Amino acid sequence: MKTDLGSYDNCDYRSGRGVVTRALWHVANAVVLQSWLVPVSWPKRVLLRLFGANVGRGVVLKPRVNVKYPWHLQIGDDVWIGEGVWIDNLADIVIGSNACISQGAYLLTGNHDYRDPHFGLDVKPIEIGPGAWIAARAGVGPGVTMGDESVLLAGSILLSDAESNGVYRGNPATRVRFRWPTATENSSS
Amino acid sequence: MKTDLGSYDNCDYRSGRGVVTRALWHVANAVVLQSWLVPVSWPKRVLLRLFGANVGRGVVLKPRVNVKYPWHLQIGDDVWIGEGVWIDNLADIVIGSNACISQGAYLLTGNHDYRDPHFGLDVKPIEIGPGAWIAARAGVGPGVTMGDESVLLAGSILLSDAESNGVYRGNPATRVRFRWPTATENSSS
Amino acid sequence: MKTDLGSYDNCDYRSGRGVVTRALWHVANAVVLQSWLVPVSWPKRVLLRLFGANVGRGVVLKPRVNVKYPWHLQIGDDVWIGEGVWIDNLADIVIGSNACISQGAYLLTGNHDYRDPHFGLDVKPIEIGPGAWIAARAGVGPGVTMGDESVLLAGSILLSDAESNGVYRGNPATRVRFRWPTATENSSS
Repeated sequence: MKTDLGSYDNCDYRSGRGVVTRALWHVANAVVLQSWLVPVSWPKRVLLRLFGANVGRGVVLKPRVNVKYPWHLQIGDDVWIGEGVWIDNLADIVIGSNACISQGAYLLTGNHDYRDPHFGLDVKPIEIGPGAWIAARAGVGPGVTMGDESVLLAGSILLSDAESNGVYRGNPATRVRFRWPTATENSSS
Repeated sequence: MKTDLGSYDNCDYRSGRGVVTRALWHVANAVVLQSWLVPVSWPKRVLLRLFGANVGRGVVLKPRVNVKYPWHLQIGDDVWIGEGVWIDNLADIVIGSNACISQGAYLLTGNHDYRDPHFGLDVKPIEIGPGAWIAARAGVGPGVTMGDESVLLAGSILLSDAESNGVYRGNPATRVRFRWPTATENSSS
Repeated sequence: MKTDLGSYDNCDYRSGRGVVTRALWHVANAVVLQSWLVPVSWPKRVLLRLFGANVGRGVVLKPRVNVKYPWHLQIGDDVWIGEGVWIDNLADIVIGSNACISQGAYLLTGNHDYRDPHFGLDVKPIEIGPGAWIAARAGVGPGVTMGDESVLLAGSILLSDAESNGVYRGNPATRVRFRWPTATENSSS
């Protein structure tokens, strides 16, 4: 068996918007979100909402953020999106209130079935629970759910679910401790 | 013993082109490949060939790709180079047909001899076999050969060779499974 | 217990300069350091010094370097800062002479107390000893001291101190060997 990318066909994938909207977003993303030109958050919140994102109150967006498709993005209240964060959301990414995605972090929804000779595209949503923290330059893979108040430490790569209140580290990341004292009710939101 | 970068001398290194060609490429790379301005692949293929790269049919180049020296680049047919891929080819990088280098991945050919007080530059080629996949944000080091149909999973760092059909993960990456059923002839190309 | 970013308050943090200076640096950093427009080092050295950095002789700065606050930066002589290096210095970063920070590396001084419901900011300085090498795409966390002549290999993440002459690899990075023969005096500078 071998891979034949010439036979690749992603006609089953639906981005959710037409080519004109995608082209307009490509420009808006580059000029307003990805650049250094807009140092404040509110014009970015307005723009994301205009393109279909659900963005809560008090959301902070630093410079050089890269969002693939805003119509696949839901962000709660008081969320921070750090400098250079890459939200590669071919599928839905849902970020709960009070979550923090630190600088240089990466959320990846697209995968390929590497045991399919046509290398079929396989997109899966990501859910980041309320109060979770993805630290600097960490990466989260397709289909991952991070529980409420979970933590992924700097530079770590998370390819499977993180339980509520767990602190994860490494590549692939594993749980190294808990965040809050475990006797208390810590995962309700 | 200690390092003395003031005595560093890379006069033995030959980039392969004169200063004018390198300066022109510096601008072309920044404006056409690394920017968001050119969303289609064909002008990038034309430009890479103009500067000496060997680029096959159907090669896809997403935005924000960074190529150091195109005259050290050979790409087969139906290869995908994802968004933000960094091809840091001080030495030759050869990418076989049907290979996929996903978004944010990094190919590194330059090393330093850290046991040399002058920190001598040591460049080594990279060879990516046909059908191989380097997943998102993974990194491949100098002198590495990835066999046909091998896979390096997201965020992994590969500093030694990958055998054909092997699936590698971690930092440093090690083989965690095989890609295709191993009883079949899978590594011929 | 749970996180409440709406109650976050970083009033205790002092960046060290007023809003006008920070805004001017934001533009200067984007146009001169982070862009591809200035391929030589000396205008960047001049600019960094103008904004309060202490920069030695013969310091090389490649394109796309990102410096948060130059007034928190001290660089010795004959230091190399590679392409795409991110110096995220909310607190002081001190880089000794003859050190090399390779392309895509990341120095991180900001942390959050994830066991504080207000997610308090916690910044800590980084010290990179003379002759140390941080290889491509490696990351160094807040409060870390890298000893003289220590090495952090490509893609590795260092979240605790590195001893002089040690060679570190992995995520989290651990010492895998020594750099110079250990019988000699190797850590004096």
